[in-house]
Parts: sequence; structure tokens; C-alpha cells
Amino acid sequence: MIHATALIDAGAKLGSGVRVGAYTIIHGNVVIGDNCEIGSHCEIGVPSSLSDGSPLVIGNSSLIRSHSVFYEGSVFGEKLSTGHRVTVREKTEAGAGLQIGTLSDIQGHCKIGEYVKFHSNVHIGQHSTIGNYVWIFPYVVLTNDPHPPSNVMKGVTIEDFVAIATMTVILPGVTVKSGALVGAHSSVSKNVAADTVVAGSPAKFICETKTIKLKDGSGESAYPWRRHFHRGYPEAVVAAWVSEFASS
Amino acid sequence: MIHATALIDAGAKLGSGVRVGAYTIIHGNVVIGDNCEIGSHCEIGVPSSLSDGSPLVIGNSSLIRSHSVFYEGSVFGEKLSTGHRVTVREKTEAGAGLQIGTLSDIQGHCKIGEYVKFHSNVHIGQHSTIGNYVWIFPYVVLTNDPHPPSNVMKGVTIEDFVAIATMTVILPGVTVKSGALVGAHSSVSKNVAADTVVAGSPAKFICETKTIKLKDGSGESAYPWRRHFHRGYPEAVVAAWVSEFASS
Amino acid sequence: MIHATALIDAGAKLGSGVRVGAYTIIHGNVVIGDNCEIGSHCEIGVPSSLSDGSPLVIGNSSLIRSHSVFYEGSVFGEKLSTGHRVTVREKTEAGAGLQIGTLSDIQGHCKIGEYVKFHSNVHIGQHSTIGNYVWIFPYVVLTNDPHPPSNVMKGVTIEDFVAIATMTVILPGVTVKSGALVGAHSSVSKNVAADTVVAGSPAKFICETKTIKLKDGSGESAYPWRRHFHRGYPEAVVAAWVSEFASS
Repeated sequence: MIHATALIDAGAKLGSGVRVGAYTIIHGNVVIGDNCEIGSHCEIGVPSSLSDGSPLVIGNSSLIRSHSVFYEGSVFGEKLSTGHRVTVREKTEAGAGLQIGTLSDIQGHCKIGEYVKFHSNVHIGQHSTIGNYVWIFPYVVLTNDPHPPSNVMKGVTIEDFVAIATMTVILPGVTVKSGALVGAHSSVSKNVAADTVVAGSPAKFICETKTIKLKDGSGESAYPWRRHFHRGYPEAVVAAWVSEFASS
Repeated sequence: MIHATALIDAGAKLGSGVRVGAYTIIHGNVVIGDNCEIGSHCEIGVPSSLSDGSPLVIGNSSLIRSHSVFYEGSVFGEKLSTGHRVTVREKTEAGAGLQIGTLSDIQGHCKIGEYVKFHSNVHIGQHSTIGNYVWIFPYVVLTNDPHPPSNVMKGVTIEDFVAIATMTVILPGVTVKSGALVGAHSSVSKNVAADTVVAGSPAKFICETKTIKLKDGSGESAYPWRRHFHRGYPEAVVAAWVSEFASS
Repeated sequence: MIHATALIDAGAKLGSGVRVGAYTIIHGNVVIGDNCEIGSHCEIGVPSSLSDGSPLVIGNSSLIRSHSVFYEGSVFGEKLSTGHRVTVREKTEAGAGLQIGTLSDIQGHCKIGEYVKFHSNVHIGQHSTIGNYVWIFPYVVLTNDPHPPSNVMKGVTIEDFVAIATMTVILPGVTVKSGALVGAHSSVSKNVAADTVVAGSPAKFICETKTIKLKDGSGESAYPWRRHFHRGYPEAVVAAWVSEFASS
């Protein structure tokens, strides 16, 4: 289960049923939960001069794919799932079910809720705050410096159920409110109201999300997406969503 | 020729003259053609629960550079050439001479023609269809979901000889027709007519491609590019292009 | 100090106090200065058919983080510092203190001054010329081909103290003059005047940089940034900047 070529520090705490791939390095200041799988060529728990000594904690039943790098000092809930070549720096806290796509980079000092999904090649700047059930698509950047370079940090806030489409920048200090949709290739310089669509550069109000129809011939609204899209969420969460919309 | 540290499953079928770099893993469900070179730190033929059991097939005389990851279940023609840290998921079919630049990510379920060139850091969404002799430049994203997240998939179609410049998004279901040029930093929401230039966000018609002059002092048209640009194509292909323009 | 699994060619010249991580490959045509650290899973000094045989030279006290790939034939001053999975091709010359963020890709044939900082996922096209104390933020692309694909190369020039914000493209042949700021998500098709802000797609003049106030409550100008931002620069450089602004 632990490949013979994996280099695991004696200080690392690995739960039961943990599998570790070939040529992976696990440093000492790491706690990995039960039934986790770490792919090949990873480096897990990289020591950092920026850390306060707290360990990297990976929840039960997580999957970290090959060539990924995690620093010490972050905490992930159960069922973390990553693509390949993910980078996660110090001081990130995330709830259960976080998905981090291939090549995504979490710069650290972030708070992330439950069942958040980052697709490939997402860049989460320091001091970002992300709610629950958020979707962030490829090549999205969450920024933090209002006049770079400087020592001023104004992280972005993304609330529950937000979806941010590909190749979009969220500028420093912006809040995208619950259920909003940000169109592809946008630059968002102002707060986005709940359940609205914005797009463009600079992004402007387009419509309320509920006016977008599903392109599956059903004639139903595409948003809130939790009404029709359930793949990959826990049964209890889906049951709550189903009952939320049962009467409408 | 096979480095002593390469881990090659007994089931893998390697042709004659295959070279494999240090610390590379080759899984069992893999067929690699003659005279291929696989760089260091790769993982080739990753098993996938999404696969139907078909192997990863790499054509003769291919070069896969270091830190790349290929899943089982895709088929590549001869002379595939990749940069470093390429990711290729299940169910992609590509013709001969495909070039995939460093950090590019092919999400799978794609069809790709002959002598297509992806530069660095290109993201090819699932269900993309790409013709022959296409160029896609860095940080281009081909999307597929018209109202993310959803279960609706509308892949992009890119026809022969198209060039898509850097940092451009092609929105779901769009077709870019033969010989078109999409300018840098564009967002393409509508079909693009053959042999036209579009640019902007949203992208608009700029001109016919033939009106763009080569900036080499010759005063000739820059498009169709196959008239003057032949580097890296097979002799027979270049000969056909030369004869196509000999009379004009 | 050299990990037992590191594969170091007998021809490589390593200075005193060099550390090399696990599973890293160092080829023969490499000169690494004193007190350098090379992380795990790197490939350093990749042989290239495009090279003239000159070695890769890494200055003293440099740090190359894990999974990085450097080709032979480039020269770096002291205190080079990279993130993870950096790629550097042939024929780049850089001064002291270059910082190259995670996933950044320097395509080669570039000239880079002193204490330049590339954040994560920056793409520096061939034939770029970059001055001193420049900042380039994530997902910025410096291009070079005015009508792709072609054999015409018009590299970009970035002068001293310029800052280019995230997700911006600089088009071929453009010069961004000293002290300018390019806003996020911009496409720059014309030269940018010194000490001005441009933004948009295509980028337009917004204001002089000195009119932007620091968002730290001080009421001071945010630019020139060297007046207030000194982190990571050598003492002598900072002293010169302090004295430059002491009288104003």
C-alpha cells in the first residue's frame, strides 16, 4: 500500500488504509486520515519558514493525485479530491469535499467552506474567503492587492452557490454574493448582487440568474443550479436541495 | 534505454527502441510504438474508473516530455510530441503529429485531426472536435457547459487551419470555421465564418484574413498561413500547400 | 546534502554547500553556484538540440523548488528563487534576484534584468526583454508573433519598475515604458507611456500612476511603488530608493 520508493518521514502520522504512490515524499509534520490515497511524485507537508509549526491535516477518504505539492499548516476536511500538480500553500482551512483541479494553486491564508469545486488551473490568492457549494472554473484568478505591488491585502469573498466561469478575474476586496453567476472572460471590479448574472470587462449586470433557461429542452431555469445538478454531492445535501424545490 | 528507476508494468507493450526516463511509471494498459521517448517523472496509462478498458495507444516516433500524465483509453497517431507536465484524460483520439505544449490539459472525449499544434497551457474541454493543421496558442480555453454547473455538454468545433491566439475563450457549442483567426484575449460566443478575423469580448468580425499583411517587409498576405509557414510539417503536406498556391 | 536518489551527471559542476532533493536529475552541462538548493523531482540542464553547447549557469544562493525543469544554455545571477514546476528553456540571461513563480514558463531567448519578479503562471514568450525591478502577475502572457503562426518574431519590451497585473496579454512588439502599470485582464496593443496606467481590451490610458492613492489610509500615492514597497530587495537598493524620495 505504501510504495517501496515512497519516502515517508518517521514523524508523519498516517491513518489506516493509506496508500502512497511511487516516488512520493511525505514530510514529518503531516497527519493523513484513514483510507486516503496519495498519488506518485508528490511532496506532502513541505516545511515552511512562514508556518507556525501546525501540521498539514488531510481528512479521511481523500485523494491527492500525482505531482501535487502541499505545504505544512493547512487543514482539509474529509473527501478532499485533487487533480494532478496541485499546489497548496500554508494556512488554508477547508471543509469536507473540496475538489481542486489539475494545476490549481491555492496561495494560502484562505478559508473554504463545504463541497467547493475548483476546476483545473484556478488561482486562489491569499486571504480569499469562499463559502459552501461554490464552483470556480478554469483560469479564474482571485486577486488581493489593489495597487500591486504593495503590502495591502484585500481578499475576495465568494458566497455560497456562486459559479465563476472560465478566464475571469475577481479584483481585490470584491464580494460575489450568494447564487450569483459570473460569465466567462470577465473582470469583476464591484460587488455582485445575489442571484444575478454579471459579465464583461469590467463586468456589468446582465440579468437575474433565474431567467436563464436550461439548454436541455426542458424549458426549466438553469439556476439555482442546485435544483437540477446533484452529481458528486452527499445524499443528505441533495435531499435537502430536492425538498427545497419540491413545493415550487 | 529504459532507465533503471523506471517502473514498467509487465502488461505494458513497448515497441522497439523505446526509451524511458528516470522515475517514470508506465502502467499495464498501454501500447507504445517503436522509437518513442518518454521523459522522466511521467505517469503513463493511469487506470481510470471512467474507462471502458481500452488501452492508451501512442504512435511510433513519439516524444512525451517529463512530468506528463496520460490516462488509459486514448489513441494517438505517430509523432506525437509533448512539452512538460501535459495532462491527457480518457477517450481522446488524435491523428499524427499532434503537438501538446507544456502544461496543456486535454480533458478527454475529444477528437483531434492531423498535425494539430497546441502551444503551452492550453485547456481543451471535453467533447471538443478539432480538425487538421489547427493552431491553439497559450492560455486558450475550449469550454463545453452553457450554464455551469450542469449536465449539458456542448463541445466546441474548430475546423482546419484555424489559429486561436492567446488568452481566448471559445464558448460552448461554437464552431470556428476553416482558416479563421481569433485574436488574442477574445471571448467567442458565436460561430466564426471561414477565413475571417474576429476579436474582442464578445468577439466581433474585424476583417477577412487575407487583408492582413505579413510584417516581414514582403507585402504579402499573412493568411492563409500555409502559403508561407511550413516548419514542422511533413514534406508531402508542404508540397501540396506549395502547389496549391503556385498558380496564384 | 545530496539526496541518495538524486541522479547527478559526473560532468555537472556543483558549488560548495549545494543541496539536491530526492528524485531530482542534474545533467552534465550545468554549473550550480555555492549554497544553492534544488528541490525534489526536478530536471536541471535538459540537453537541447537548439543549444550551442553553453551550459546552464545558476548563481550562488539560489533556490529552485520541486518539479522544475531548466534547459541547458541559460545564465542566472545569484539568488534566483523559483516556485514549483517552473520551466525555463534555452538562451535566457537574467540578473540577480530573479523570482519565478510556480508554473511559470520562460520560453527562452529572453533578457531579464535585476530583481525581476514573476508571480505564478506567467508565460514569457521568446525574445522578450525585461528591465530591472519589474513585476509580472499571474496569468500574464508576453507574446511575440504578430500574425500566428509565422516566422516573424517581435518580442515585447518591459522597462524598469513596470507592474503588469493579472490575466493580461502584451501583444507583439509592444514596449511598456518605465514605471507604467497595466491593469488586470487587459490586452495591450500599443506602447505604454512611462508612469501611466492603462487598462482594458484593447488597453487605453486611464491616468498617471501618481494619482492612485494607497489604500492603507495614509493618503499617499501608491506609485512609484518603490517609495513604500521594499520587501525582498537588497539593502543597498532599498537605501537608494529611500534617499530618492527623502527630499520629496
